Amino acid sequence: MHSQHPLPVGFRFAAVKTQVKATGELDFALIVADDPCVAAGVYTQNLVHAASIDWNRRITPTSNVRGVAVNSGNANACTGQQGIDDNRSIAEHVAGTIDAQANQVLVLSTGVIGHLLPMDKILAGIDVASCSLSLDPESWNATSLAILTTDQGAKTASRLLKIDGATATIHGIAKGAGMIGPDMATLLCVILTDVALEPSEAQFALTEAVNASFNRISVEGHTSTNDAVVMLGSGKARIKPKLSSFAAQFQTKLTSLCIELAKMIPADGEGAKHLIEIEVVGANSNMEADRMARTVANSNLVKTAISGNDPNWGRIVSAVGYCEGIHLNATQIELTINGFELFAGGQPLKFHAAEVSQSIADNWQTRIEISVGDGPGRAEHWTSDLTEAYVRFNSHYTT
Amino acid sequence: MHSQHPLPVGFRFAAVKTQVKATGELDFALIVADDPCVAAGVYTQNLVHAASIDWNRRITPTSNVRGVAVNSGNANACTGQQGIDDNRSIAEHVAGTIDAQANQVLVLSTGVIGHLLPMDKILAGIDVASCSLSLDPESWNATSLAILTTDQGAKTASRLLKIDGATATIHGIAKGAGMIGPDMATLLCVILTDVALEPSEAQFALTEAVNASFNRISVEGHTSTNDAVVMLGSGKARIKPKLSSFAAQFQTKLTSLCIELAKMIPADGEGAKHLIEIEVVGANSNMEADRMARTVANSNLVKTAISGNDPNWGRIVSAVGYCEGIHLNATQIELTINGFELFAGGQPLKFHAAEVSQSIADNWQTRIEISVGDGPGRAEHWTSDLTEAYVRFNSHYTT
Repeated sequence: MHSQHPLPVGFRFAAVKTQVKATGELDFALIVADDPCVAAGVYTQNLVHAASIDWNRRITPTSNVRGVAVNSGNANACTGQQGIDDNRSIAEHVAGTIDAQANQVLVLSTGVIGHLLPMDKILAGIDVASCSLSLDPESWNATSLAILTTDQGAKTASRLLKIDGATATIHGIAKGAGMIGPDMATLLCVILTDVALEPSEAQFALTEAVNASFNRISVEGHTSTNDAVVMLGSGKARIKPKLSSFAAQFQTKLTSLCIELAKMIPADGEGAKHLIEIEVVGANSNMEADRMARTVANSNLVKTAISGNDPNWGRIVSAVGYCEGIHLNATQIELTINGFELFAGGQPLKFHAAEVSQSIADNWQTRIEISVGDGPGRAEHWTSDLTEAYVRFNSHYTT
Repeated sequence: MHSQHPLPVGFRFAAVKTQVKATGELDFALIVADDPCVAAGVYTQNLVHAASIDWNRRITPTSNVRGVAVNSGNANACTGQQGIDDNRSIAEHVAGTIDAQANQVLVLSTGVIGHLLPMDKILAGIDVASCSLSLDPESWNATSLAILTTDQGAKTASRLLKIDGATATIHGIAKGAGMIGPDMATLLCVILTDVALEPSEAQFALTEAVNASFNRISVEGHTSTNDAVVMLGSGKARIKPKLSSFAAQFQTKLTSLCIELAKMIPADGEGAKHLIEIEVVGANSNMEADRMARTVANSNLVKTAISGNDPNWGRIVSAVGYCEGIHLNATQIELTINGFELFAGGQPLKFHAAEVSQSIADNWQTRIEISVGDGPGRAEHWTSDLTEAYVRFNSHYTT
């Protein structure tokens, strides 16, 4: 998918095939900043995580990053000291080819857990990639493909920013279709901008955006060992968020770009037939609304009902009820699916089940709206439905 | 399945067909105590729950119960004031036929959520059942069938108690195969004994037993609106827990009976090909061990791996890592599947994947042992694997 907007100034890209993926597809990408740039990151909260996560956490936020190396097909997680050493070797080798220091290079890995990286293939890939860096949009597109694993296709988005005649852009690429469970950050995502950011500004803006997007999605609620969202700002557009009115525009567009990318992930959920959008309103707090939306999103019974085009509202209401740490008056719950009112005042409403079922069948996106009272709390969450294809796929992934 | 042990003295049973189940199978059971007896109960913690749950909660623990009415095929949950009125009518009608008061009758309902009970069928069923009460083991077996919904077969267990030449028994029946998520109580279970219990003793013993059994199982982690475990003690055996050494025997046998019944539920999990037994040891506390075991048990990625006979230990270790509210040093994790050591010291061990896979394929039960350190915390949890048949079944349950 070609973007409408020019790529942010100050970055070059390359994607290569290292044969880590048995399919022989693109599986290694290099993003290089011409000059030291600002970088922020949000990472998995999983206590069991990959060497790359610890590496990046020590570096971001910073004003001094030169590159991002991304390998797919092998997560380099649960690989002990050898995995830590291999991760450092990747950063060092990239640094050597672009005249930088190792701690100026972020590393992102995704794929199977528990296998050592075939370092000969990776290091050879770095050499090839560093010789083919380009600012051509085709290279950016190839990069968006090289980071994928079980995804059906590339996930890209971009935004244009304007103020006083000057323009800047934000571009993002993401990957993820399984092992998606929101907890501070999920999956892999790289965001580039030519806006001039301070490290603390970049980190704040990215955290805000991630909390409204990548932390609101799930496929099966299993938080991965390698989730990371990183944002690089080259500053080449010479527009700063400090300019009045521009800060709000930057945050709004960054968040909206993150939501666009984030929704692509459950939409591409393994075996998914529906993207399910859950909105909870009227809760005591946003946190309580978020807990309820997540609990509904993680219910296999809700997810199988939607895959079967079944307006089985009892499963949704009962999932709200068993959510931990909330206050709830069951007689205040109101529920609609795709706009059809199914439940209110603690009692079922009369509705044409066949009509609602047809609406679910006819639409790729199913919208579930749950009102639980008069409170100010509100949250949205996006998830995939659960199909036989998901089970078939995940019963045959490693051995 | 006929029990080896005599039924507890002081109870009679009847099971009838009311046509609430479209299949025409047994769907209403009545258990009557000859004299007022002790009763204890443990109920769902779901804030959205059936009228029957509130009704029973007001009654137990008590020394004055005469009957238990169980209907299957309709949960009478999310049915508003009419559901509350219908529940009371059942208790009143049963009371009228056995010369008791309504508040001496417990009511258990299970089945579809959100449909009003066809009360004409239920009340007619009560009339037929009350005329056919019997202490014959065949009536008890019919009762164990009448409480089922999506179960493949009856779930019964019994224990014999002896002290100083006197004997007593404990018998239990349970139902459940889907919407099973442990939170203080799951599913339906009725336990009868002729031991002489005080209400507080009965409630304490039952709560202990349920915490070690029905609260340690799951199918998909969705806590139902109608879960209830009730125990009735007739006292007719004239053995009291207060007798020295007998109290411990009673608790041990009650807990072991509850574990036997509880494990039958994930073993009968909708579409299940494996019963998965998860043991966590070495945690800081039993509560932390329990959280880790539950998190592994609720991971669709773990459950699909086992259904595919895949020793995918990375999914198990990463699930332990994203568990909330625990302390964990990833380098201390050790993992075995069916006795094969797969992961230790933060690193993968060499193992023959095909051999472990064959072991999973050859055994109906898969045992996952996870050691997370040197702490005293320990917990077991039982769950089913996740198969395409589960998804198929739950995509086509109501409409």
